Amino acid sequence: AGDAAAGEDKIGTCVACHGTDGQGLAPIYPNLTGQSATYLESSIKAYRDGQRKGGNAALMTPMAQGLSDEDIADIAAYYSSQE
Amino acid sequence: AGDAAAGEDKIGTCVACHGTDGQGLAPIYPNLTGQSATYLESSIKAYRDGQRKGGNAALMTPMAQGLSDEDIADIAAYYSSQE
Repeated sequence: AGDAAAGEDKIGTCVACHGTDGQGLAPIYPNLTGQSATYLESSIKAYRDGQRKGGNAALMTPMAQGLSDEDIADIAAYYSSQE
Repeated sequence: AGDAAAGEDKIGTCVACHGTDGQGLAPIYPNLTGQSATYLESSIKAYRDGQRKGGNAALMTPMAQGLSDEDIADIAAYYSSQE
């Protein structure tokens, strides 16, 4: 499982749309607060690996492409731990 | 926007994984409780229209394919209204 504390240092590009607490800054961005870490990892990897088109994919894919599996696990753990 | 009350009658196939309140019944299923309705619509349509692969897409795509835009708006409104 990821390390939420490490994740807090890796959300620099995420906060613009998802905020620091996971509440989306616009209705088209999903709220991540307390979301399942397993699901978040699965989604971020799907974007990273080009398995998602449509919706926000054009925006999210480049964001995810710079992330390692460990980064993704940490970021997922961080947002999942938010309340 | 969708009609949450109408949506409550349309979540028959959704509850097996997402529950009636939106809390995923397994870690791999996303929590939908209070999620942005705009985002939920965008996601369900992406599954319906085959724009999402990987993750749960193989499971979600057939679920979404039977839904009209109005069904999707109502279901999104329903889960978004859950607390």
